[in-house]
Amino acid sequence: MADEYVRVNHQALADFVTKVFVKLDVPEEDARITADVLVRADLRGIDSHGVARLGRYVKGLRDGVMLARPHIQLVHETPSTALMDGGAGLGQPVGWRAMRLAIAKAQAVGVGFVAVRNSNHYGIAGYYAMMALEHDLIGMSTTNSDCLVVPTFGRSAILGTNPIAVAVPAGQERPFVLDMATSVVPRGKLEVYERKGRAMPLGWATDEKGLSTTDAARVLKNLAGRAGGGILPLGGAGEEFSGYKGYSLALLVDILSGVLPGAGFADLIYPKTLEGKPLPANVGHFFGALRVDGFRPLAEFQASMDEIIRRLKNSPKAEGAERIYIAGEKEFEKEDDYRQHGVPLYGKVADNLKQIGGEVGVPWVSDEG
Amino acid sequence: MADEYVRVNHQALADFVTKVFVKLDVPEEDARITADVLVRADLRGIDSHGVARLGRYVKGLRDGVMLARPHIQLVHETPSTALMDGGAGLGQPVGWRAMRLAIAKAQAVGVGFVAVRNSNHYGIAGYYAMMALEHDLIGMSTTNSDCLVVPTFGRSAILGTNPIAVAVPAGQERPFVLDMATSVVPRGKLEVYERKGRAMPLGWATDEKGLSTTDAARVLKNLAGRAGGGILPLGGAGEEFSGYKGYSLALLVDILSGVLPGAGFADLIYPKTLEGKPLPANVGHFFGALRVDGFRPLAEFQASMDEIIRRLKNSPKAEGAERIYIAGEKEFEKEDDYRQHGVPLYGKVADNLKQIGGEVGVPWVSDEG
Repeated sequence: MADEYVRVNHQALADFVTKVFVKLDVPEEDARITADVLVRADLRGIDSHGVARLGRYVKGLRDGVMLARPHIQLVHETPSTALMDGGAGLGQPVGWRAMRLAIAKAQAVGVGFVAVRNSNHYGIAGYYAMMALEHDLIGMSTTNSDCLVVPTFGRSAILGTNPIAVAVPAGQERPFVLDMATSVVPRGKLEVYERKGRAMPLGWATDEKGLSTTDAARVLKNLAGRAGGGILPLGGAGEEFSGYKGYSLALLVDILSGVLPGAGFADLIYPKTLEGKPLPANVGHFFGALRVDGFRPLAEFQASMDEIIRRLKNSPKAEGAERIYIAGEKEFEKEDDYRQHGVPLYGKVADNLKQIGGEVGVPWVSDEG
Repeated sequence: MADEYVRVNHQALADFVTKVFVKLDVPEEDARITADVLVRADLRGIDSHGVARLGRYVKGLRDGVMLARPHIQLVHETPSTALMDGGAGLGQPVGWRAMRLAIAKAQAVGVGFVAVRNSNHYGIAGYYAMMALEHDLIGMSTTNSDCLVVPTFGRSAILGTNPIAVAVPAGQERPFVLDMATSVVPRGKLEVYERKGRAMPLGWATDEKGLSTTDAARVLKNLAGRAGGGILPLGGAGEEFSGYKGYSLALLVDILSGVLPGAGFADLIYPKTLEGKPLPANVGHFFGALRVDGFRPLAEFQASMDEIIRRLKNSPKAEGAERIYIAGEKEFEKEDDYRQHGVPLYGKVADNLKQIGGEVGVPWVSDEG
């Protein structure tokens, strides 16, 4: 029963989410951008970062730790770089503007990088990287995030799942779209094991002593209470499977997204009062765009992209495996399906959205896809 | 006995290597650069990429698949990007020039990216990324390399260990220097297990059917004979530990280093004749440099770097662990030791160098450190 879902038309869903944000005093354009980022996550099957998170944004806006009408500022600018300040607003509108600026700079001088401070959770990193594809540019984005990940040999979750997204245009083939947390798994995976009461694989997370554990409920409880332990970086615990690589990538993301713009970093992103009340966050993001023809004619590059993709996909499969995938391919296939047949929403998520809509006076969409 | 080593003064070692290259008709400056890159790897404890590889470069030059006096060309240039052609020479001299160009572009316009085609093995990626540190810039480099890594669900080694290196300046603390293969382990690790006749951990490599194996000798034999199987990407086999992330990072490196400059990529980097004779390689590299003050004043950035490094290092340790490291820290400590007390060279490596020196008429260094 818990796994039952309804299919909802993605445009109707985006309209609903937009209206909810507008009711909370978010400007129409910002509401539309935010809704588009959230629904795109659902369309691509990344439902942990989709409309299921609406309640958290609504709570943030209501509590005043996120501002509906932030003063977004361009703090510093060079022909190829810029620093923006999100003014403690939603992460998506400032993220969208920052990526647009990175794209404009790349179009003008070949490369553009824009860093953002004073922001909030911006949804899927891949959304921003993919904005570059419409302009035949290579796009990238990273963001820091709430502490869930323990460094190699550490006991405290002091880094976020800090994702890296890179999108690269191809020719006939679909673009390469990498959008990966630098942790071995996302928190959502632990929640699935907790719900099912199953033992996790060893190598996903550590307990309050910093030792590998299969007990998902314990890890989640420890994370909530900051009792020690957390999710492991890509590569797992210690050095046997090179967990320090995932840890170092997570730190690199925090350097680019947090240190470079002067945002929060490590355990300084989500400050609280002494009583434990949340204060405005200081999430940071990093965006980049790169012109392919700064190196090689676009058409030649696209043909080579098609070739490398085909060589990989057509190469022999491991025993028992049927397909070799390119980053983003599974998500594009889901997107094709969901755009046509509606976005699948778990009953619990749909109920929660209905309730939010009821509270602010926005009618829920019809369930037909 | 096999693990016995001698300590050799790093400057004497670099002089020896320089002279060997000069005897093989490499211009003095190029010889010095190449020697410096190789010895720096040994100084940092990355001996798989140090002077132990000299024989391979010597063989390449003698066989004519690497040119001692290549025609290095600047093929295309914009204010922020460039494409260079290595002219089938050693990878280090063109790599050094390309990184210098990226640095100059970053100094002029904020960001610089230079891609290189028609090159050869360039040593450790970290060397080039670290060149940016002297100029207070963030530096990066990637390169593609010989096929050793199987894609997720694949059976053939069709990607290289394709490293990513990023160097970031700090203030009082040592810089962050990430220099990581995107595979779970380097080939050298398999060779150690083969020599000792020990079973590898499951999750490092696959056999000719594409199934996980603990048999290092078998994997190395299969790789040599292109019989299928190979080293797994960071994250291991299948999806349980997110091996597709390591695979996608390896592919991203091949896109930036191979596809973008129009170099070889995937299994097209080291072509051979029908009889199996090596033809000139077409290795590709990618270099980047970024001005910190394009976003934020350098001194503020450096202070924040110190803070994030200290927060990580001072955070609680996992039970049984003593230290939390920052990327590059272990290598800096080795470098301090080896610069003072000499670079440790295994007897077999020293003997091999002596022999190469004898063949071309360069006397071996004294063994005192």
